Amino acid sequence: MTMSITLYTLCGRDISRPFSPHCWKTVLSLAHKGLDFEERPLAFTAIPGIENGFSKTVPVLRDGDRLVKDSFEIAVYLDEAYPDQPSLFNGEGGKALSRFVESWSQTQLHPAIVRIALLDIHDMLDDQDQAYFRESRTKALGAALEEVIAEREAEIAAFPSRLEPIRKMLGRQPFLGGESPLFADYIVFGALQWSRVASGVDLFAAKDPVRDWFERCLDLHGAKGRSVTAA
Amino acid sequence: MTMSITLYTLCGRDISRPFSPHCWKTVLSLAHKGLDFEERPLAFTAIPGIENGFSKTVPVLRDGDRLVKDSFEIAVYLDEAYPDQPSLFNGEGGKALSRFVESWSQTQLHPAIVRIALLDIHDMLDDQDQAYFRESRTKALGAALEEVIAEREAEIAAFPSRLEPIRKMLGRQPFLGGESPLFADYIVFGALQWSRVASGVDLFAAKDPVRDWFERCLDLHGAKGRSVTAA
Repeated sequence: MTMSITLYTLCGRDISRPFSPHCWKTVLSLAHKGLDFEERPLAFTAIPGIENGFSKTVPVLRDGDRLVKDSFEIAVYLDEAYPDQPSLFNGEGGKALSRFVESWSQTQLHPAIVRIALLDIHDMLDDQDQAYFRESRTKALGAALEEVIAEREAEIAAFPSRLEPIRKMLGRQPFLGGESPLFADYIVFGALQWSRVASGVDLFAAKDPVRDWFERCLDLHGAKGRSVTAA
Repeated sequence: MTMSITLYTLCGRDISRPFSPHCWKTVLSLAHKGLDFEERPLAFTAIPGIENGFSKTVPVLRDGDRLVKDSFEIAVYLDEAYPDQPSLFNGEGGKALSRFVESWSQTQLHPAIVRIALLDIHDMLDDQDQAYFRESRTKALGAALEEVIAEREAEIAAFPSRLEPIRKMLGRQPFLGGESPLFADYIVFGALQWSRVASGVDLFAAKDPVRDWFERCLDLHGAKGRSVTAA
């Protein structure tokens, strides 16, 4: 008997445009493992209602009778549950250093993307989610959404410099994972795909090797990332 | 027959204070592998004269009849030549992602440390090296040494924010390598040890978990890093 895999993700008014960076990490993780799954995009305010309130955030993975939350935990689970499929970490060192990549992406890329795309994300949501999003983000960020994006153009101009560590590394190898991608690539891809789907703003330099890497990631696993168009 | 290992490193007037970030990476790599070695600190201008001009830079490792240069290449060599000793990468994923850590350190930490410690490094050197250093660095940086360090105090004040990805990661695990250090830890350690030995400036935040990590690294392998005092 084949167990069925369900992945709960995040969407706005348009169910065909899931945008969460963390969910995109898991979509590519499942594709990397060669696993079929059914994606169920949800509104923010629908998340507490699934799987008996199992998680306040997505992604949530149901694999048969197993429930797992958090994109990194899901990647660890998938490598343990499906050891014969291509690894997402290629060893314990890869798993540990993926935590550094995650911390880099969440401290260097995510806050900047918030200051660029926050209103675009808001505008994608349905009415109920817009109210929730405005209230929760205003509280978390300590400022109105419109204030957060006040320096949007300067943030966009400065963004290519944030990618410098990736750019330099690409002089040596085509993926963070080396000759082929690993979960670390999907971590960084998720951040840039979030911006691509929500805002469509160009975050790369002219003739940027990071753009080439991102395009390669969009093409991976049957062009899964490209199946949702840029905003 | 036991082959002898020689490591050529970099020093100034005082041979007992090697300071190169790349050489420190290799000193800790050799200690990590449990290998005895003789360290031969050299002046900048003495490097072309060793091993028949094998390399323009240090570290250079001689292991029996084998010569290897570049700290990363040496780490790869050591893991291949001594597979029964503790690994520096813990797998191919760890090796690939160490290149990202290297690129992060060299684009985010090294240039800032140059803007902080450039004159301190100059002042450590002997007369011949000082002339070489001033000329080569002025050319490479496109500015006089004194101009490069003009914003030194502001660079020092901003430095703790550069360590944010490490700081966030340390909320999850005590080393970049996970529960114990890997070459990736020595990459970042090397940059901060370079500054510690040359300038002695405090680059950490108050009560900084990154400071605690750095202190743990100083204590590793018989407190090898601590054997040279701070400037």
